[in-house]
Amino acid sequence: MKTEPIRWSGGPAGTLHLIDQTLLPLEFAELDFGAGDLARVFEAIRKLRVRGAPAIGISAAYGVCVGVQHLLETADKEIFLKTAQETIDYLRTSRPTAVNLFWALEQMENLTRELAETLPAEDFSGLAAGERLLAEAKKIHEDDRRLCAKIGEYGAEALDNRLGILTHCNAGALATGGDGTALAVIYKMAEMGKKVHVYADETRPLLQGARLTAWELTRRNIPVTLICDNMAGQVMREGRIQAVIVGADRIASNGDTANKIGTYSVACLAAMHDIPFYVAAPTTTFDLAIQDGSEIPIEQRDPAEITHGFGRRTAPEGIGVYNPAFDVTPARLIRGIITENGVISPVNRENVLRVCQDR
Amino acid sequence: MKTEPIRWSGGPAGTLHLIDQTLLPLEFAELDFGAGDLARVFEAIRKLRVRGAPAIGISAAYGVCVGVQHLLETADKEIFLKTAQETIDYLRTSRPTAVNLFWALEQMENLTRELAETLPAEDFSGLAAGERLLAEAKKIHEDDRRLCAKIGEYGAEALDNRLGILTHCNAGALATGGDGTALAVIYKMAEMGKKVHVYADETRPLLQGARLTAWELTRRNIPVTLICDNMAGQVMREGRIQAVIVGADRIASNGDTANKIGTYSVACLAAMHDIPFYVAAPTTTFDLAIQDGSEIPIEQRDPAEITHGFGRRTAPEGIGVYNPAFDVTPARLIRGIITENGVISPVNRENVLRVCQDR
Repeated sequence: MKTEPIRWSGGPAGTLHLIDQTLLPLEFAELDFGAGDLARVFEAIRKLRVRGAPAIGISAAYGVCVGVQHLLETADKEIFLKTAQETIDYLRTSRPTAVNLFWALEQMENLTRELAETLPAEDFSGLAAGERLLAEAKKIHEDDRRLCAKIGEYGAEALDNRLGILTHCNAGALATGGDGTALAVIYKMAEMGKKVHVYADETRPLLQGARLTAWELTRRNIPVTLICDNMAGQVMREGRIQAVIVGADRIASNGDTANKIGTYSVACLAAMHDIPFYVAAPTTTFDLAIQDGSEIPIEQRDPAEITHGFGRRTAPEGIGVYNPAFDVTPARLIRGIITENGVISPVNRENVLRVCQDR
Repeated sequence: MKTEPIRWSGGPAGTLHLIDQTLLPLEFAELDFGAGDLARVFEAIRKLRVRGAPAIGISAAYGVCVGVQHLLETADKEIFLKTAQETIDYLRTSRPTAVNLFWALEQMENLTRELAETLPAEDFSGLAAGERLLAEAKKIHEDDRRLCAKIGEYGAEALDNRLGILTHCNAGALATGGDGTALAVIYKMAEMGKKVHVYADETRPLLQGARLTAWELTRRNIPVTLICDNMAGQVMREGRIQAVIVGADRIASNGDTANKIGTYSVACLAAMHDIPFYVAAPTTTFDLAIQDGSEIPIEQRDPAEITHGFGRRTAPEGIGVYNPAFDVTPARLIRGIITENGVISPVNRENVLRVCQDR
């Protein structure tokens, strides 16, 4: 059974639907967003109701459409486009690390600028402008679906005949507009009839691996074994893992990759056990403006995610906590980065720029 | 404030008191065990209400005293000693990995055998025999307190002037008869006025790091930062860690060390970051009968510990789960093993045997 974490129904006055991923796997529920719900879209991104770098970008693009819905009947070009721009600026502050958010909002901003330059002020139609914004958001969504499919194909080729595959966090259908990035590779391998067994890190503190990856793999009949994050080294040592594959939230121009906290530890463990470590991400996840991973801002999140996981306190009151949401895996630990334009390997600036030039 | 996880009050007819560690840090409650409560002692060990290799051994020794309490008024030597032996055999099956359990029960068995050989059958007193068993259990308890103190001293010397120390699980006062093994080193360093800052892995699935280590360090005013297990690599990379120190559940004669699951991953990460990795354990934790770690039986625990942590389900129904309670860190990754007889370093069979010969 396929999963659609993000849907838009109807025209510019329609509705954005997001699966509330914080409720999975106990409850499957969609949240609906229409005119006046921009702050709720922001909250859904901030609170990880929708998460995964590509999915955040797509949701934010649709969020711009939600943000102008109350102006679809206006004829005031200036107010409409100013509101669009303010919406874009607001959504940019929802989360700091995943670059797809900024990339998608930049597409929406470019269009807003184009509308400002090309649409006549005297004959302005909010509805027509809203249609253009929605078409752009849908294009971002549709493009991502296509990128996922290509990543799946290149990845399935790169990981040919690797039985045990470890993944961290969720880089699946729930994280993208399509079949995912890392998990698209798994789905493609299964589709091709290859045997594959996934080991899913549960991924503390928010358990995206246990709640989301295990859930979506099970729904699609892929064999999966859930482990705690601290068991990764042990399952590698036991010879159960032939490859590691993860997604990415931002990749610097030298290939350094920010992804969910814990990814760096997994990459180190893979290196110690001579297991190839792959990143799967569309070229929209690359930030070519930065030289290396040290320039990637790392979101620090609420200590309560660790001390009050799962609805009750599990640590002493007032304890000091460190809770970075991401870490950066240096390029040297990455065997290859699987993109929609092919696999970057070895991972270095020259190869990154070459693969990204067609994006 | 000091912590006493195990207490015995009164004489042979007295009471065993165990802190129920599964309730910490939310609730501090002691469980009481008297005549007829042997199965409850077994359950307390099995369910980790009392845990930590030395503490399991001490509790089991007192458990033998509980197991004969209903026979303190008997004059039937055979029945008394048969019951003692059956109690010992029963408690041996409570948990498989920590060797201190078997070591402590062997002391009790040796005494039982001695009583069988030396006490006359015609003038047998259950009370007198019970007194002997209790004295032996108290000796095991008291000896462990002394071992902890010595480990603290040798460790504080070995880790001199290391500010940031990472630990995994709980090898503290709650795990022993004294100040702990790994944490005894920390307490000793603090007592000597050295600056120290502990990073505590939360230690999934049962969160002994978050619930117990953070709790007991806080009670004794040691600065501590709680992290998720998957953050260990990142805090090492950031230069926050100058040494790792953990406890042990069983150490083979070549120095291979079984400890809480996740320890092996931490040891690998420490090696990748050139951070010295220490084990702290009394010589009672060594199993000289085995050649290396491959002979250590690893307890597999209930999948629900992972899928239903924290009181509610956090993974899909029926998901496959791997839940080993321990892993084995090979001797080559261990800089030193800190015992009550000094530090074993380099860690090899020759040095292990030398340090253990006086135990």
